[in-house]
Amino acid sequence: MTASLLLRNVRPYAGATTDILIENGRITRVAQGIEAPAGVPVEDGRSEIVIPGLIEAHTHLDKSLWGLPWYKNEVGPRLLDKIDNERENKKRLNIDPYRQSARQSIQSSLMGSTHIRSHVDVDTEHGMWGVEGVMRTRDEYRDIVDIELVAFPQSGLLRRPGTLELMDQAMKAGCEIVGGLDPCAIDRDPKGHLDAVFALCQKYGRPLDIHLHEPGEMGLFSFDLIVERTRALGMKGKVTVSHAFCLGVDAALVDPLTAELAELDIAIMTTAPASRPAPPVRKLIEAGVRVCSGNDGIRDTWGPYGNADMLERAMFVGLRNNFRRDDELRMALDVCTSEGAKVMEIEGYGLTEGSNADVVILPGETVAEAIVTRSPRRRVVKCGKVVARDGVSIRTAP
Amino acid sequence: MTASLLLRNVRPYAGATTDILIENGRITRVAQGIEAPAGVPVEDGRSEIVIPGLIEAHTHLDKSLWGLPWYKNEVGPRLLDKIDNERENKKRLNIDPYRQSARQSIQSSLMGSTHIRSHVDVDTEHGMWGVEGVMRTRDEYRDIVDIELVAFPQSGLLRRPGTLELMDQAMKAGCEIVGGLDPCAIDRDPKGHLDAVFALCQKYGRPLDIHLHEPGEMGLFSFDLIVERTRALGMKGKVTVSHAFCLGVDAALVDPLTAELAELDIAIMTTAPASRPAPPVRKLIEAGVRVCSGNDGIRDTWGPYGNADMLERAMFVGLRNNFRRDDELRMALDVCTSEGAKVMEIEGYGLTEGSNADVVILPGETVAEAIVTRSPRRRVVKCGKVVARDGVSIRTAP
Repeated sequence: MTASLLLRNVRPYAGATTDILIENGRITRVAQGIEAPAGVPVEDGRSEIVIPGLIEAHTHLDKSLWGLPWYKNEVGPRLLDKIDNERENKKRLNIDPYRQSARQSIQSSLMGSTHIRSHVDVDTEHGMWGVEGVMRTRDEYRDIVDIELVAFPQSGLLRRPGTLELMDQAMKAGCEIVGGLDPCAIDRDPKGHLDAVFALCQKYGRPLDIHLHEPGEMGLFSFDLIVERTRALGMKGKVTVSHAFCLGVDAALVDPLTAELAELDIAIMTTAPASRPAPPVRKLIEAGVRVCSGNDGIRDTWGPYGNADMLERAMFVGLRNNFRRDDELRMALDVCTSEGAKVMEIEGYGLTEGSNADVVILPGETVAEAIVTRSPRRRVVKCGKVVARDGVSIRTAP
Repeated sequence: MTASLLLRNVRPYAGATTDILIENGRITRVAQGIEAPAGVPVEDGRSEIVIPGLIEAHTHLDKSLWGLPWYKNEVGPRLLDKIDNERENKKRLNIDPYRQSARQSIQSSLMGSTHIRSHVDVDTEHGMWGVEGVMRTRDEYRDIVDIELVAFPQSGLLRRPGTLELMDQAMKAGCEIVGGLDPCAIDRDPKGHLDAVFALCQKYGRPLDIHLHEPGEMGLFSFDLIVERTRALGMKGKVTVSHAFCLGVDAALVDPLTAELAELDIAIMTTAPASRPAPPVRKLIEAGVRVCSGNDGIRDTWGPYGNADMLERAMFVGLRNNFRRDDELRMALDVCTSEGAKVMEIEGYGLTEGSNADVVILPGETVAEAIVTRSPRRRVVKCGKVVARDGVSIRTAP
């Protein structure tokens, strides 16, 4: 499914204008005045910015309501209210994981994402419905976006017997990542929960990406247990902690942990939430910690927000971290591109010769302007082929 | 400048479809199946949502960089860094208050705002340049938007001798509101600063709208002095405190103050910032406090963000306050519409018969969907005339 293409007059990261030659899905030359080889189509970059594909490193493809009638949200305030409401109403609301993940994947591609890490619910009510649906989307839409699956015990692991066996089944079926969730607050057995998910990682030789919403000292306690296991099991570079609100508390409490994150190469995913304490992006990156971002749930029973745009997410990263200077906005973009690629361990990511030809062309004088403007006029290239242009995808949603 | 118009098939606040007859700039009938009087044009509402005009209750029209070449922000982190950088570079960067306020006003109108409260810098470096420029815009563009001016001592009042005299001159020239700024942190003389601005209010019989960025206990101290003067001078209902980050600290500290805000009808303006403590919107509104919002600076030397869209601001209010339910998103919209109108004391605001014909027609199944989607396909009616349609204004920017 790879293609060749000459991008004429584009500006990598808003720098000097150049041409980029793509052959068989890879960038083979970056230079001014490249002649198009015979038969290779030319795309006029119009001196717009080019960046590598946006990285959606945390979302839930299986549960979006995208394209369904408006869901009137009257759900209670607690995390468990949202979890139970969703599980109990998923079938009634017709949230088919295949259809909905396909819809969101196309929307995501339109906005410029070329890679998605999706947590997918695994629970005793719906079994493998979510995993099978998202895997079908992954297979059918791999021409426009790469999807990896995290087997995610959204309703808890130990508190609902049978879930662990389903998690095992999901990993056996080909999920790339083991998921986890609030070992104290939801499962109420931090040792039991973490031993179980780390054991799955060991059994399948797969990384961990665990949701940790737990605030303050409780979250730091769970984090400490995660660090302990990462070290003991030799899983350096193979653990991501998503949300990690507890990293937003006092520096005196967080700084010692930050040093351990860097040492064990534990990655952090933040949506840069406005209403919660949040990981300090600049501080973590400067400490050498990989920090990625994601849109999390897009218009689901949890909340109505979201359009799957990782450029908008870069704006949220900027707003949450009080980034105002141009170099700070570049850091926000890095979180949504190169940092995300590091977390997802994407080989050949970038704009240099030899890189995968997964890029986005978009208007703007500078990177900062591109982020704050978030123009819908984007051209998205996947494996050397233009797969989306000005809000129109080459694929249609079911 | 008033006009007549029949809006056919619109849904007030996403409710049942109806017609709205506008005559001479006022809504005269709301009913199904209204016949258009002779000569009155008909606008097909296409069953879209209609809401009253968005209220931009806090911005800085005089200092936007909208339409100028990209400004590379390399400014230091402190508030004073931003204040000094702006004042010292305003002329060099060609930030002409007339031109820039006209540009932002048109953008604001395109997005559906029908009323703007603009703080306008008054300082010894630029004197009345800002006030005169924004007044010219106010006069020349009153067919599309109503603008009121706050005389604003952005660089401090007492710390820069001569500023108070200029503030007096600005009020004499017709500014509607007296401004103020961080009596402790910037002017370092809370009693002196507050006595001076309240004296101006008394002299001109005008309300106060004071910027209060001061955090935590310092902010609560300044707030206490503001409350004291509001009570002593009988200025109930005539004071707005903008930003008020200090209201985002512990409820135990803030609750007693909240009761006083309700008693003295002191209004709060919040941009719902993601990176700072912020006033708790629901709690304040439920206590009977008027709460409005604004976009603050739009793409200026302080920061690159902003597009003058108060519907986007409603989304930020929702995100900051963890509003997820549909009734909560309606509250976020109220902050950007009816609550703002109360703060700006706009007479005849609303969608009922007798109201001003200042409305926005926009797509969406529900109010919540309209907010999270923020479609640019909006029709904006000012005084009964369609002044903007799908991103195109009847006016052009200088």
